Amino acid sequence: MADPVNAKELIRKKRDGLSLTRDELGALVRGYLGGEVPEYQMAAFLMAVYFAGMTPEETSAFTDLMLRSGEIIDLSDIPGRKVDKHSTGGVGDKVSLILAPMVAACGVPVPMISGRGLGHTGGTLDKLESIPGFRVNLPVEEYRRIIAETGLVFAGQTERIVPADRRLYALRDVTATIESFPLIAGSIMSKKLAEGIDALVLDVKCGNGAFMREYEKALALARLLVGIGNGAGKDTIAFVTGMDEPLGAAIGNWLEVVESVECLRGKNVPDLMEVTTVLGGAMVYLGGKASSIEEGMRKCRSAVWSGKAYEKMLEVVDRQGGDVGFLEKPERYPVRLSPLDVGSPSAGYVLGFETTRLGMLAVRLGAGRLRMDDRIDPASGIQLLKKTGSSVEEGEPVARLWSSHTALREYASQEMKACIRIGGAPPPASPLIRTMVDRSGAVDWVTPQVA
Amino acid sequence: MADPVNAKELIRKKRDGLSLTRDELGALVRGYLGGEVPEYQMAAFLMAVYFAGMTPEETSAFTDLMLRSGEIIDLSDIPGRKVDKHSTGGVGDKVSLILAPMVAACGVPVPMISGRGLGHTGGTLDKLESIPGFRVNLPVEEYRRIIAETGLVFAGQTERIVPADRRLYALRDVTATIESFPLIAGSIMSKKLAEGIDALVLDVKCGNGAFMREYEKALALARLLVGIGNGAGKDTIAFVTGMDEPLGAAIGNWLEVVESVECLRGKNVPDLMEVTTVLGGAMVYLGGKASSIEEGMRKCRSAVWSGKAYEKMLEVVDRQGGDVGFLEKPERYPVRLSPLDVGSPSAGYVLGFETTRLGMLAVRLGAGRLRMDDRIDPASGIQLLKKTGSSVEEGEPVARLWSSHTALREYASQEMKACIRIGGAPPPASPLIRTMVDRSGAVDWVTPQVA
Repeated sequence: MADPVNAKELIRKKRDGLSLTRDELGALVRGYLGGEVPEYQMAAFLMAVYFAGMTPEETSAFTDLMLRSGEIIDLSDIPGRKVDKHSTGGVGDKVSLILAPMVAACGVPVPMISGRGLGHTGGTLDKLESIPGFRVNLPVEEYRRIIAETGLVFAGQTERIVPADRRLYALRDVTATIESFPLIAGSIMSKKLAEGIDALVLDVKCGNGAFMREYEKALALARLLVGIGNGAGKDTIAFVTGMDEPLGAAIGNWLEVVESVECLRGKNVPDLMEVTTVLGGAMVYLGGKASSIEEGMRKCRSAVWSGKAYEKMLEVVDRQGGDVGFLEKPERYPVRLSPLDVGSPSAGYVLGFETTRLGMLAVRLGAGRLRMDDRIDPASGIQLLKKTGSSVEEGEPVARLWSSHTALREYASQEMKACIRIGGAPPPASPLIRTMVDRSGAVDWVTPQVA
Repeated sequence: MADPVNAKELIRKKRDGLSLTRDELGALVRGYLGGEVPEYQMAAFLMAVYFAGMTPEETSAFTDLMLRSGEIIDLSDIPGRKVDKHSTGGVGDKVSLILAPMVAACGVPVPMISGRGLGHTGGTLDKLESIPGFRVNLPVEEYRRIIAETGLVFAGQTERIVPADRRLYALRDVTATIESFPLIAGSIMSKKLAEGIDALVLDVKCGNGAFMREYEKALALARLLVGIGNGAGKDTIAFVTGMDEPLGAAIGNWLEVVESVECLRGKNVPDLMEVTTVLGGAMVYLGGKASSIEEGMRKCRSAVWSGKAYEKMLEVVDRQGGDVGFLEKPERYPVRLSPLDVGSPSAGYVLGFETTRLGMLAVRLGAGRLRMDDRIDPASGIQLLKKTGSSVEEGEPVARLWSSHTALREYASQEMKACIRIGGAPPPASPLIRTMVDRSGAVDWVTPQVA
């Protein structure tokens, strides 16, 4: 077992809690990608990082090395400050579908590169693909042309962007080293920095439907991500937001597109639109089209009320091959499922949800993949008829399930009931957006009321 | 990356500080040996073990799984309780060469399976091979025949004994996971338990020439090893002994054989013979030929004084193809080197040695291997002319170096001076054997004076 880059000494150094220099990390990452450092040494290194951590400087250097492992898209010839958003993932999180056209309608170009569903969470690409004809696999030139001409593009990551992350993520997945802050941060930020953006807004979720359940951990991750982004010369703002129940009512790909279109047409789904407007406001601010997040939020609202956000959505869907007729008239969507309403097990108030479990239920109903090669049924999923704080009667429908897996009906109904907590008194209100983190640090966030 | 034994979940469990069941460890070890669990998952697991440790129960189960990965020699048809000794490794540690024939001469069969030099330490096999003709690679049948007929055999580990350890050790070596107590313990004990022994004496070294420098760590390892041995039904006693200077005067293969033969012929090298007699006494006791360690020590002394220990050495060397003429008349050994005496840099007392560094100097002079394929020069090495506590004049020779690398003379002389500490007053005496650990626990050890 040869060791040309002395990976063993670098593993030992990290194992012993020391910091690696940029050159040392570079030798390791490049050696790994070049085949000199074998998988087993990288696996041991990743586990050492899991236990011993990385300094912010190491994490930034690691991110930059990942970034430079592949193509970095250059959008500098396109006018305006390009801004994207990234969420760490939640259930019913269709924020991107509303926010991207909303922000683009405010004059800020949004080159949005998204992912697919992972575990109990949905993915923006899967949601968009539920629109018949919509293409997310765009060659770089087409990606560039669409963002230049419409101010907005939705795309998946190409093979050429951050190849190191794909290899490392696959290795982390099978070696139980996913849950490491610096590795998470490097994976997220390298991909975002490769998109050609000037600024970035991050939605770091905490709560029982988030990958990072505890607020303190989510806040620490938010600080780390903001530090890396700003250190790389991209204005970065993060919000720590609650994921203790799904955002909005819809969970499932087409169901979420429909809810998003309703919001773009002016419907107010309070939790969903609060997160969307705050994140969008921050993007408009970072894009230089507002002097504050609050002003950005007002512009986002106007973009919805004026119809411009919805028009932008129709424009980009059409441009990417999607059939806008289904957005205009969702009732024409070919749904061959019959819904199953689930009644409340008792009378009282909805105290909350087992959100991860609920997300997994939606996956089992057909809205996600249990295995890599599972096919998604775009019309399947869950519509919540009651949200946290609602009063319910015993037997009153709390959710509507859509699935072609009719054999699962009984199981799904029981599981849905197990995912909703009913109590005798309304739960205390808690803020949905808890903290904002920017280059000056973290501050408590209170969402301003914008008219 | 398929995962048929769910190695990922087992890695995660260990990573999160939980204990694995015997079945889970078995799935992992067998999966690894069978090729189902890839190197990178085992590497991540080993690093998780490095950080999260193993319980004594896990360590015993792990050792047993390693043991069962290969052949277990059965010596039950050979009369008597078979006892071996294992040392964690030191500099100038030729104890086995004296102790094995001494104990065998007391009527206790000693099936001794040894290793080669590792890092700065020497290996019994390399020392024996400095005797022209001596063969250490014995087929199991010959091994069995020699122990049956002479009561003593020196051999190397065959390929068929604990193959899991060879694969895991190679992986640990390149992933910086050597220094893990349960992994060290599993590696040592699985090999010893495969030898067909009934009892085992362990010499766990601590000090600046040992792999485990700190006494507390050495003691913890000793307790762990004794627990595994007794748990596996083999009477096991460990001693924690000091390695703050080389044992005896000679460092280097043939030099150590000569010193050993001198001791077998009655020379008293105090530190070397104290360790040898105590370990040997414990072996005679565990072999059922003495009612206490102290009585065992007396029998060992008698075996030397009567000449029986030396005769046993000649018998086994002859039996394994070695030319006993060189043991009888060491001056006939073909040494083509000229010695280099190194003078004391100042007058005073020898306070101690940089023992690891001294061991590495001997390796560089030709007594060990810097690379796997380096050839050992059996006559090379170091003879200490002064030991800790000796008074010296400035310029008085403190060591004699033997090497064919004449270009190293100046470096070696400087390095030797740097490895010896001289002070104005004699150092305080400290016990060489500090602690004995048996199934009842650890007790301070005071070496009895046996006539």
